[in-house]
Amino acid sequence: MSKPLILVTNDDGIVAPGIRALVEVAIQFGEVVVVAPDSPQSGKGHAITIHDPLRLKHVRVFPGVEAWECSGTPVDCVKLAKHVVLKDRKIDLCLSGINHGSNASINIIYSGTLSAAMEASLEGVKSIGLSLLDYSFEADFEPGKPWISRIIRYALNNNFPHGKLLNVNIPKGSVSSIKGIRVCRQANARWVEEFMEGRDPNNQPYYWLTGKFINEDHATDTDVWALENGYISVVPSMHDLTDYAAVESMRDLNQRLT
Amino acid sequence: MSKPLILVTNDDGIVAPGIRALVEVAIQFGEVVVVAPDSPQSGKGHAITIHDPLRLKHVRVFPGVEAWECSGTPVDCVKLAKHVVLKDRKIDLCLSGINHGSNASINIIYSGTLSAAMEASLEGVKSIGLSLLDYSFEADFEPGKPWISRIIRYALNNNFPHGKLLNVNIPKGSVSSIKGIRVCRQANARWVEEFMEGRDPNNQPYYWLTGKFINEDHATDTDVWALENGYISVVPSMHDLTDYAAVESMRDLNQRLT
Repeated sequence: MSKPLILVTNDDGIVAPGIRALVEVAIQFGEVVVVAPDSPQSGKGHAITIHDPLRLKHVRVFPGVEAWECSGTPVDCVKLAKHVVLKDRKIDLCLSGINHGSNASINIIYSGTLSAAMEASLEGVKSIGLSLLDYSFEADFEPGKPWISRIIRYALNNNFPHGKLLNVNIPKGSVSSIKGIRVCRQANARWVEEFMEGRDPNNQPYYWLTGKFINEDHATDTDVWALENGYISVVPSMHDLTDYAAVESMRDLNQRLT
Repeated sequence: MSKPLILVTNDDGIVAPGIRALVEVAIQFGEVVVVAPDSPQSGKGHAITIHDPLRLKHVRVFPGVEAWECSGTPVDCVKLAKHVVLKDRKIDLCLSGINHGSNASINIIYSGTLSAAMEASLEGVKSIGLSLLDYSFEADFEPGKPWISRIIRYALNNNFPHGKLLNVNIPKGSVSSIKGIRVCRQANARWVEEFMEGRDPNNQPYYWLTGKFINEDHATDTDVWALENGYISVVPSMHDLTDYAAVESMRDLNQRLT
């Protein structure tokens, strides 16, 4: 049996410590190819680049690992990896991260890290987005590594349904503080925005996005609960946004609006 | 009772004919405020602008309607509309579009139009993304207008569950060719990418995204089916990406990976 082919990407950029930590774990399991953004792409969600050409550059960043930096978004990286870099070779697993900062709950929608993982899952590739709850560039990724190894081993040895992926978040803390894994649902939390208003050197107004994360979902089966209680959260996620309950309850519109 | 407050945005930019058509319908139902991108933002998904300041400019584009153009993404527009332009006044309805081109099926994930609508729904605002299956700048939005009126009237007079929105797509064609409305689910279709490869004036390689939409989901309860058969598709959609079936089937990981 040939070695599994593992694609690694992220949204913090190819020089971020998080992707280095992920590559260090991944190379224990197979052939690793990295295609990641050449600049930070946090908050890019599922953006793709339509109106501009993309650049792809072979770089030596990780010892013994093929790596390419890309001028586009995380989703662009996955598309270029599959169709240009890997020329449609079968990818056995896509790993995106390790993100510097949480992608629990509603963050999955804004996150370039998770959107890259979802793009791979749309291509039929098993896919995992990984994040550490520490925004610092000096974040310590070591305590999470043994857990990431277990999750990668599980992913390589088990089928995922098509179009589905795992959203994995790791609490900040020491090896001994991580209690285990919780398979859970996305908490129903949200961001409450504020804008910092200012004036530029030409005295023109600007607005700069800021905000705080508010969780009013206090159930114990959520990712936010798991993380607050020392567990690694694993949320099986998907790309079908249909609200099936509402499809049923609203079906009478077919007649009512005619 | 005061007039409903209706926020209108899009991703094709504030001068696109599609948003003009939508404003013309919306002003029949209430006070309309437009906050839309100052440049085309197709394919921006749920991207937000974190690392740069945003600009907001009062413009006269629609007769008798307050309008602002914004330098950011469609999701930025909604955040700025709510917190800066409208200073947290209660918005009764958000309309995003009319997009030039389909946002059926998996396009909901890439679409700035639908992401803007979803952002409003996350803020607890009833929200509708609208698209016409015609990419042309000269697209004819007239045949869809009476249907959009009916959908707006329904939305203003009925509760939506929090965090949910309607993804409305309108087939291209004459008034008589539109057969009615179908409440349906997102078809399980996808894009198959190809990259146009070329050389720039400095002989450096570039890659330009292209692709085709492939639907292998031939069921009759999908948005793609509805549109192909002359109906307007209405997909109730949501922001919870949790795969609940997989949460159940994978729960044994809590023990297995410890």
